[in-house]
Amino acid sequence: MRKALIVQVVRAQTAQNKVTFDIAGVHNSQLSFFTRRFLVDEAVMLGHGSGGSMMKRIIDEVFFKAYGDEILLKGDDAAVLPAPKRNERLAFSTDSFVVSPHFFPGGDIGKLAICGTVNDVATSGARVKYLSCGFVLEEGYPMDNVKRICATMAKTAAEAGVQLVTGDTKVVNKGHGDGVFINTSGVGFIPDGIDLSGTNCQPGDKILLSGTLGDHGITIMSCRESLSFQTDIQSDAAPLNHLIADVLAVAPHTRAFRDPTRGGLASTLNEFAAQSQTDMVVDQDAVPVKDNVMGACEMLGYDIFQVANEGKMVAIVPASEADAALAAMKANCYGRDAAIIGEVTEMAANRGPKALIRTPIGGLRILDMLVGEQLPRIC
Amino acid sequence: MRKALIVQVVRAQTAQNKVTFDIAGVHNSQLSFFTRRFLVDEAVMLGHGSGGSMMKRIIDEVFFKAYGDEILLKGDDAAVLPAPKRNERLAFSTDSFVVSPHFFPGGDIGKLAICGTVNDVATSGARVKYLSCGFVLEEGYPMDNVKRICATMAKTAAEAGVQLVTGDTKVVNKGHGDGVFINTSGVGFIPDGIDLSGTNCQPGDKILLSGTLGDHGITIMSCRESLSFQTDIQSDAAPLNHLIADVLAVAPHTRAFRDPTRGGLASTLNEFAAQSQTDMVVDQDAVPVKDNVMGACEMLGYDIFQVANEGKMVAIVPASEADAALAAMKANCYGRDAAIIGEVTEMAANRGPKALIRTPIGGLRILDMLVGEQLPRIC
Repeated sequence: MRKALIVQVVRAQTAQNKVTFDIAGVHNSQLSFFTRRFLVDEAVMLGHGSGGSMMKRIIDEVFFKAYGDEILLKGDDAAVLPAPKRNERLAFSTDSFVVSPHFFPGGDIGKLAICGTVNDVATSGARVKYLSCGFVLEEGYPMDNVKRICATMAKTAAEAGVQLVTGDTKVVNKGHGDGVFINTSGVGFIPDGIDLSGTNCQPGDKILLSGTLGDHGITIMSCRESLSFQTDIQSDAAPLNHLIADVLAVAPHTRAFRDPTRGGLASTLNEFAAQSQTDMVVDQDAVPVKDNVMGACEMLGYDIFQVANEGKMVAIVPASEADAALAAMKANCYGRDAAIIGEVTEMAANRGPKALIRTPIGGLRILDMLVGEQLPRIC
Repeated sequence: MRKALIVQVVRAQTAQNKVTFDIAGVHNSQLSFFTRRFLVDEAVMLGHGSGGSMMKRIIDEVFFKAYGDEILLKGDDAAVLPAPKRNERLAFSTDSFVVSPHFFPGGDIGKLAICGTVNDVATSGARVKYLSCGFVLEEGYPMDNVKRICATMAKTAAEAGVQLVTGDTKVVNKGHGDGVFINTSGVGFIPDGIDLSGTNCQPGDKILLSGTLGDHGITIMSCRESLSFQTDIQSDAAPLNHLIADVLAVAPHTRAFRDPTRGGLASTLNEFAAQSQTDMVVDQDAVPVKDNVMGACEMLGYDIFQVANEGKMVAIVPASEADAALAAMKANCYGRDAAIIGEVTEMAANRGPKALIRTPIGGLRILDMLVGEQLPRIC
């Protein structure tokens, strides 16, 4: 074992262009010092995914320090969690995050990893309770980045009121990953009587959107090094579980929530249409979009309706509760720009379910689902 | 959008050295044909992670075909699941899988992804019920491999009696991943009265091991292309939730289960010792190891106690129930070589908790936890 470790130490040094001496002959007690100094403090090493004491150290010194709580610290292979109340059902969802770059205006991959899964679980109407977190780290990735990401995760989880209760860490060789990928899975409890699903949408229902479209996608685009295009736009990444709870409190017959992430509003509305065999008709003028985001979209030839969002929620609400739902959204800090943007209609007889845009001059155009990839690795 | 898609088609062709014509001017209906023929059928493309219709196609044609069931097919962002029975608690665990190579004798990354999480959740004594599955695919990875992996996952999940209820797919650019990484998270229900944890181990308890050590680690090692060493050993990857249930049925006071994966038996016993502030003493002669596995270990200088297993379980059982637990293990198809390999003792007064090996000549040697990485990407 000692030999294998020394080889790694040398490789770690090489990766950072910091080889100043040959440590292959170093004494064991010194080795402990070096591993602590160079491996844990500066860069991710293969040994951090080994199941041995180096892995224990990254867990103790990085992950537990950021978000260790009683359940996580117990140290068994599975977290043991209190049961939901009688008649509550479980909500369960998973999401992997591979966004590039890892840090961007308004957030980082850690914020996305918490918000994405919190929002997915919350769309079921569940109180989001527990998250798992699986890291796939690349050898040589700066440990300071890992710490920064974990700090964001802890802060965002606290805001959402969820606990990180179980985790896993894998390390892949340099050149076989991209710094950090994160998977989070989430568990929530759905109160009795709540039954939200895209299949529930009915003609006459209103379509609500909790804020401006496209902020996240355009932010990531502006960060990519190959694009010189720059704006002052920030990612909208946000945990929306409290916003959903606020809406459900005043609009208990809400049919469905969905966050328009990859594929944008176009995918969300096409999915709802297909699930419920209806048409989804959106008034183009009613959709809130920031001027600079729209300008960037037009310049780059993107369809704003297909750009990803990470802090927006679409809600399908019966007309009778739509105003109350809108007021609840607007009262939440993440819903100030919320709007009723359209309505659900009967599907036209001569074709399948569609999402449609009513243009400012009154025509209807089909809002296609994204086919391939507009902007890869947006989340 | 059309332009973006065409660029991708050309890239897909290039990646496979199959560019035979320029398709940039191709008609839309032909394009649909080409995307279906070349992109979905042959290789993973960035568009498969887009949130658009290409992603819908890989989900429908690959994932749903392999393991789509009623819950997964509902198509909402979170799976809605029946609640546990009254007084049952939840078990929740997560694991990412980055094994290299993806296919090896006795299994593949998909089998590991199911078994690893099933076993982790089962160690809590839970009935393992639901799994999530998050794929991180690399652009250009053969779609046939994805299908083969999904088929193994479906088969292994069926054997374990668990449902894949929610999933996610991300695609990263060529050169920024390694074909396929899989995260699975699992949820189980823990019956009232069961309280398993490494903290429960007590002096006098017996240490049981469900079979031979080292089969998985040595198999992976023999597959690595840089090693010419070959054996007829197979990975032991197996779902052990039924074996655990069998043991609990006859040994209800079992203290803890843990699967000795990364870090091997050494890590598992050191973890148990630290959690319960005891010593774990193993009789070297009592530990089942296949001759060819031991031979490979000796040749390569590995410590068999630090080699990873993916289908073995360590159980800490009160002495009064140890024989019954052993008989239950041996009656299970994955526990035929089970043995009582040692016992829990009082921690020596002058030092911290340790795992120890009693050698054939009667001496005790400290069984160190792996420090760095013995063999990276074993699971």
